[in-house]
Amino acid sequence: MPRFRMTVEYDGGPYVGWQRQENGPSVQGAIEAAVLSLTGETVSVRGAGRTDSGVHAMGQVIHADLSKDWSPYQLQNALNAHLRIAGERVSVLDVEAAPEFFDARFSALRRHYLYRIVSRRAPLALEAGKAWWVPKVLDHEVMHAAAQRLVGRHDFSTFRAAHCQANSPVRTLDRLDVTRRGELIEIRATAQSFLHNQIRSFAGTLKLAGEGKWTPDDVEAALKARDRKACGPVAPPDGLYFMQVDYPDVIVDRRRPVTDNDDGADESDDLS
Amino acid sequence: MPRFRMTVEYDGGPYVGWQRQENGPSVQGAIEAAVLSLTGETVSVRGAGRTDSGVHAMGQVIHADLSKDWSPYQLQNALNAHLRIAGERVSVLDVEAAPEFFDARFSALRRHYLYRIVSRRAPLALEAGKAWWVPKVLDHEVMHAAAQRLVGRHDFSTFRAAHCQANSPVRTLDRLDVTRRGELIEIRATAQSFLHNQIRSFAGTLKLAGEGKWTPDDVEAALKARDRKACGPVAPPDGLYFMQVDYPDVIVDRRRPVTDNDDGADESDDLS
Repeated sequence: MPRFRMTVEYDGGPYVGWQRQENGPSVQGAIEAAVLSLTGETVSVRGAGRTDSGVHAMGQVIHADLSKDWSPYQLQNALNAHLRIAGERVSVLDVEAAPEFFDARFSALRRHYLYRIVSRRAPLALEAGKAWWVPKVLDHEVMHAAAQRLVGRHDFSTFRAAHCQANSPVRTLDRLDVTRRGELIEIRATAQSFLHNQIRSFAGTLKLAGEGKWTPDDVEAALKARDRKACGPVAPPDGLYFMQVDYPDVIVDRRRPVTDNDDGADESDDLS
Repeated sequence: MPRFRMTVEYDGGPYVGWQRQENGPSVQGAIEAAVLSLTGETVSVRGAGRTDSGVHAMGQVIHADLSKDWSPYQLQNALNAHLRIAGERVSVLDVEAAPEFFDARFSALRRHYLYRIVSRRAPLALEAGKAWWVPKVLDHEVMHAAAQRLVGRHDFSTFRAAHCQANSPVRTLDRLDVTRRGELIEIRATAQSFLHNQIRSFAGTLKLAGEGKWTPDDVEAALKARDRKACGPVAPPDGLYFMQVDYPDVIVDRRRPVTDNDDGADESDDLS
């Protein structure tokens, strides 16, 4: 069956998250319903990352196997038409034919996320649900300095949800940059994969550094504690965007996850 | 009574427009209700521009007279608290004490609007309702060239809603710039005031130029026709943002409108 790779944008607000669940509408379910109404086929689409309820995406990548060899152009337009008719806040940005062994999750080399904070006194009217409103002055340079203490290969137990299902709390954080444009503070995170709530845990902790409650040393001490109780409050999902996934130029059979280590970490298991 | 000047942001989506109306919730009504629940006073707030249903604001300016001499800081926080409790998509960005003769509408020297077009094949998921989705390639340089034909003092009958109530169709357009950042095309318009639907009429007409259906000469001919039927389709409200209002440094009594002419044009009468 032909395999298709798609890049997807969504507003996470109306959904229980990426993954199909009993308790409400999911992004995965919306896409599967669009495929069903278009093709009559019941498929299971796989995403590169399982975003939580309220978390947005500008570049989630998925794959799906269909029985017909669609032109990517027609498939994109037809799926978007079905998603719009169903009133979904999901849009297919790109479709391409994928190699046999391409797997949106297991083939991923790096995942890129953005966390947006609006630091101002007034609540958000236009961007309600699309950023974290922090009515305090934040020093983004201190936040960036603190963030650098987290970059690298670490046991991130401190920054991991209690119910995180990953085998190992060890991850390699490639990038955690904090920049400011006016009242908007942007945190950009890159890693092969992330633990459940890892970026929102970073954002909540870095906010404490930005308002002067924690020093960069305090953030490093929290990391080294390897204890969930050492984490700052987890930031809301509103500010989190799944931006991009990088894949190798040549796709090989990776039904086992891509890992750069043998310590048991399942670095394909991205839950944000 | 102390007069206050406030800068207001709102998501126009849930509202029938700025102005209080019988047929649904208005931004003006939301602010007046917040003042009533805070102070017990029934006030009438005046805005610098009467935006239509679905039109957004990042910098609407209003004034209101209150019986108590509030600190601007407390008044802003209290109004925002009441707006949030009421579930309104309205936020007060700034409050200051205003001179006796300050009038948000009549004292205005210039109004600045932004119209946002997203030009891409895929429908908008994250920005649904916040921009005009145009699934065509648009040449923003041709749009900008066409826009320059509209700048200056003209009879804008072509670009005026049939039900526009302004006394005169003559306005002086100071700026109409078209720029691009990736898939986002931004039209920035500045004038002392605008006619009803003027900017959305510009946007719809410039889109025709961007897709190559009209030349800049065609746009100029439409202007010179002074005929509503010569206008391109009016663009949707989703993309329009009321950005900023300029006032003189010294406020004088202008219970008659500020005008730079004596031809009967009421240039305070901004309806967008």
